[in-house]
Amino acid sequence: MEKKIAVILGDGIGPEVTQQSIKVLNAIADRFGHSFEYSYGIMGADAIDKTGNPLPDETIDTCLKSDAILFGAIGHPKYDNDPTAKVRPEQGLLKLRKALQLYANIRPVTTYRALQHLSPLKAKQMEGVDFIVFRELTGGIYFGKKELSEDQSAAVDECTYTKAEIERVSHLAFKYAQGRKKKLTLVDKANVLETSRLWRKVVQEIAKEYTDVAVDYMFVDNAAMQIILNPAQFDVVLTENMFGDIISDEASVLSGSLGLLPSASVGNTVALFEPIHGSYPQAAGKDIANPLGSILSAAMLLDHFQLAEEAAAVREAVDWTLANGFVSKDIDPVNNYTTTAIGDLITEHIERNA
Amino acid sequence: MEKKIAVILGDGIGPEVTQQSIKVLNAIADRFGHSFEYSYGIMGADAIDKTGNPLPDETIDTCLKSDAILFGAIGHPKYDNDPTAKVRPEQGLLKLRKALQLYANIRPVTTYRALQHLSPLKAKQMEGVDFIVFRELTGGIYFGKKELSEDQSAAVDECTYTKAEIERVSHLAFKYAQGRKKKLTLVDKANVLETSRLWRKVVQEIAKEYTDVAVDYMFVDNAAMQIILNPAQFDVVLTENMFGDIISDEASVLSGSLGLLPSASVGNTVALFEPIHGSYPQAAGKDIANPLGSILSAAMLLDHFQLAEEAAAVREAVDWTLANGFVSKDIDPVNNYTTTAIGDLITEHIERNA
Ligand SMILES: [Mg+2]
Ligand SMILES: [Mg+2]
Repeated sequence: MEKKIAVILGDGIGPEVTQQSIKVLNAIADRFGHSFEYSYGIMGADAIDKTGNPLPDETIDTCLKSDAILFGAIGHPKYDNDPTAKVRPEQGLLKLRKALQLYANIRPVTTYRALQHLSPLKAKQMEGVDFIVFRELTGGIYFGKKELSEDQSAAVDECTYTKAEIERVSHLAFKYAQGRKKKLTLVDKANVLETSRLWRKVVQEIAKEYTDVAVDYMFVDNAAMQIILNPAQFDVVLTENMFGDIISDEASVLSGSLGLLPSASVGNTVALFEPIHGSYPQAAGKDIANPLGSILSAAMLLDHFQLAEEAAAVREAVDWTLANGFVSKDIDPVNNYTTTAIGDLITEHIERNA
Repeated sequence: MEKKIAVILGDGIGPEVTQQSIKVLNAIADRFGHSFEYSYGIMGADAIDKTGNPLPDETIDTCLKSDAILFGAIGHPKYDNDPTAKVRPEQGLLKLRKALQLYANIRPVTTYRALQHLSPLKAKQMEGVDFIVFRELTGGIYFGKKELSEDQSAAVDECTYTKAEIERVSHLAFKYAQGRKKKLTLVDKANVLETSRLWRKVVQEIAKEYTDVAVDYMFVDNAAMQIILNPAQFDVVLTENMFGDIISDEASVLSGSLGLLPSASVGNTVALFEPIHGSYPQAAGKDIANPLGSILSAAMLLDHFQLAEEAAAVREAVDWTLANGFVSKDIDPVNNYTTTAIGDLITEHIERNA
């Protein structure tokens, strides 16, 4: 298979973790006889420094000409500490999401026995946890009309959803559920909100096309409890933008380390794959960052190319490093390996098992 | 001190747990030389059965003539399973909140060493957890304008807040913080929502009147993580209606048992005190329900009367039962005590320590 991959290294630890993923992808290409061609684009503080623009048009072009995008992270403290800054790194990612119409954010929540000591939850709670959150990313109250009254004594935010917006992300989630345990949970607040009642109606309708998938419905306040009490009950979780923001961030702390959580953003054009951690500027250039979030994002990219065996080989190599204690400083402050060393170990493990 | 207390026993386990609280309040009155006079009102399925109305006007009158309301729980499965039912038990409570203008819901989150085995979180996470959530209860998106387009292809929910709505609950929370660790956290989404920006502006303004209280601000998605990662960092949490619904339900599972969590709803007239658990109809009449949620609600009622020593005596008695294993079936399925026995033990402990 020949594929074009756009790479955006970004800021902070973005470049060093993404470089590990590229080594891993190259090892996969070698072992399975594929050809991955990389084109590099700039975004974020890096792009502002070089061009004054957090997302130059050339980067969008590069992305649109590719089959997938591998992205590191963006953000730099020099912009956070300057409230007068007119261009900010984060604008780059928002603009890219819009340009590529990325309407679904997908975040797996997995547990690793080797990391149980880092989880805030007891081992009993974490047994068998393996679910994935599909969050609608371009609608709802975050993008609704906003108003502040002239005398500044009242404010309004509007939450709107259309049937079409709900349908496209729901179909994605149902298809995904068919490849898993065939269970989908819609998280909403249909006992109170009109938009939630529309979500429920549309999902009930769509469910008829996926009769092999069992669907259930959960109110968001209950979901916030269930994610702590019994996270193993979930398989595919589907929800609107703001609930998805809250629920997926809550779920992200279960495993004990944000450093190894991947994500995908999927839409009408090219899909984007990135670790959920940020640019972590304090660690930049020190070769101490955890590369697993990026490497597992690369595994999601392989899944997206329908390369299931290849994706499994990456995950198997990641499991092998964790089980053997080849981990970064965030996971073991005493005995740890560098970003590069972990990337090399995973690459060699993939080559060795060819 | 002479006080009038309206009692609404309600449905399911409501009567049996509330009766324990009345025994406890009587012991407090005896020991400290107060006089509590009780007037009974009906609400919920009980009221529907007797009058056809989930909240008869006489109950509202009784409440308005009292200094505080002690409430059990409402709800009965015969209404849940009948989608055609026009009157429902829950309407009673919604109508009462409206009639009494209860604009703030207050929920403490405490931990008990004796219950750590029931918590989904590790002991390390639960060390020193003791915070209280102030949730605005009558505004925001739950009460906003709702619209479904004529062709049912689009829906809207409006979230609105006025300065006055934010001010009244904020003053309550700040005053409460002054009596505690003098720390208040506003949970909002001010990086995205106009209403959240108004909340933040109003709270920043009010903070100037409470210079002894340290204020910080946290986005709701981060708060959902921090409640699991490091709940001990919180003292008083203030937030709008929907965020409060999600955050306080999430926080309610930390202690390991919903059965002992109390709450208060405060507004322009008489305040209402109730356990957060529901009517739990399967357990009704079996004398197995946990009375601590109700008894600790009675302690909040005493606090509301400015009877701090009296409230402390109730809590001390509750701690004593927990530490000695005098617990209900939800906490220890093997060695447990009845609802009545636990109420008696707490009552006697208060009398004995007079
Ligand atoms: Mg978030
Ligand atoms: Mg709730």
